[in-house]
Amino acid sequence: MVHVCALIHDDVMDASDTRRGAPSIHKTFENLHVKNGMVGSPAQFGVASAILLGDLALIWSAQMLHNSGLSPNELIRSLPVYDEMRVELMAGQFLDVYEQALGTQNVERSLKVARYKSGKYTIERPLHFGAALASAPVELISTYSNYGIPLGEAFQLRDDLLGVFGNPEATGKPAGDDLREGKRTALIAVALERANGSQKSLLLSGIGDANLTSDKVADLQQVITETGATSHIESMISKLTSTSLSALNHGGISPVGKQLLTELAILATDRKI
Amino acid sequence: MVHVCALIHDDVMDASDTRRGAPSIHKTFENLHVKNGMVGSPAQFGVASAILLGDLALIWSAQMLHNSGLSPNELIRSLPVYDEMRVELMAGQFLDVYEQALGTQNVERSLKVARYKSGKYTIERPLHFGAALASAPVELISTYSNYGIPLGEAFQLRDDLLGVFGNPEATGKPAGDDLREGKRTALIAVALERANGSQKSLLLSGIGDANLTSDKVADLQQVITETGATSHIESMISKLTSTSLSALNHGGISPVGKQLLTELAILATDRKI
Repeated sequence: MVHVCALIHDDVMDASDTRRGAPSIHKTFENLHVKNGMVGSPAQFGVASAILLGDLALIWSAQMLHNSGLSPNELIRSLPVYDEMRVELMAGQFLDVYEQALGTQNVERSLKVARYKSGKYTIERPLHFGAALASAPVELISTYSNYGIPLGEAFQLRDDLLGVFGNPEATGKPAGDDLREGKRTALIAVALERANGSQKSLLLSGIGDANLTSDKVADLQQVITETGATSHIESMISKLTSTSLSALNHGGISPVGKQLLTELAILATDRKI
Repeated sequence: MVHVCALIHDDVMDASDTRRGAPSIHKTFENLHVKNGMVGSPAQFGVASAILLGDLALIWSAQMLHNSGLSPNELIRSLPVYDEMRVELMAGQFLDVYEQALGTQNVERSLKVARYKSGKYTIERPLHFGAALASAPVELISTYSNYGIPLGEAFQLRDDLLGVFGNPEATGKPAGDDLREGKRTALIAVALERANGSQKSLLLSGIGDANLTSDKVADLQQVITETGATSHIESMISKLTSTSLSALNHGGISPVGKQLLTELAILATDRKI
């Protein structure tokens, strides 16, 4: 439900009218306003409703955790990780918005955004949450970081590739969605770094254009691949995944745990959606 | 900090560019964007930053509570009240937005909005929170409701009067702020119910007009008073405050507690800001 809040608010922030092919929350309320001939601005009603529903989702997520049947001690142990995770998520989202406004194109900074915005939230912190619940030893917690942080980055880099090259039928998002949105991903940063003069102008003319045609998307996809950015990111994903998996050889992970976390690493980095 | 979230998000929802005379949060970030010649839309950057900062305030408020030094048992006892209070606040805010879009003008519904949006949040729930911390008996909790719910309503009705008649130097808000915003308060509902034909057209022509001049505000203030709405609301505040205070004669409140809660009732209903 923390994630539900982030998605609802994200759509308001990006003024995205759709989410996986269906109207986004603010658009749904806006449509309701128009359909029922309500008073005032439909767009403002949509935005206000979505902000409040996002706030409610954030509060409900905490309420669900509080009422989940955890013992008082388990709950007390898990709350610090839960809070830290939520702060990191929102700070990462802000970092993303801020970097976009700065207009920077830098691989290192893109990776930092990715680490906070989704890397830690997706893999490391949920493992820490479970570790806190089970009173795991410090050694295991640090193994989870060594496994989770690179894997989270690899997960996000796969997301970057899917955002440009993903099959719309599998991802539920239009092809080249990240290009239209002008997202400052590591993939785009690498492509711009490596592009020659004419490649760079083509990229800069298309990225962030909300009305990109599918032909133009195909051109941009081709240029990104020709710069070598696609294979560079694939090789980063492989390296990060190896680093992540090698962490499982240390720090007292059981054989079953190791097997499950290995499967998770493959699911997170070798996916089509 | 829950309140900080509500205020920041409220300003985004209302597109209010000021808060107590200073730029609102989204406007502050928008100005920063312009000043530094950043990339993209300044307004969108302002809104995104304010939504995320509001989310952070909501999370930080919980984190502060979790780290406040309460014992595990105290924390576990207080979390259900805390969650309930936050859900009521956001649901009340939504009810407000929704009623405004429905365009209803109805005293009973305005009071219901006021009860959820600020009444319970301002008086009853903080008392319940303290009661939960101190393991108070059920009888005391119900006394707190009997005292807190009418007092919260009286508090909000005072707010409605200040929103139309308040002295800007004391409130920090422009005179007649609620009139410009078109807030659906109980005061306005009563005035419209009691207005004759010409009074009603004057009210409807001015309420919700963001560019009301101070002369027009003065005209509207006069009409509202002439309908008898001002004195009707004053008498509702008196009755609700009496009901609230008489609850203190039951349910095992100590003499010191009774004295403090009596002072609180006066502070909450007989204020200038």
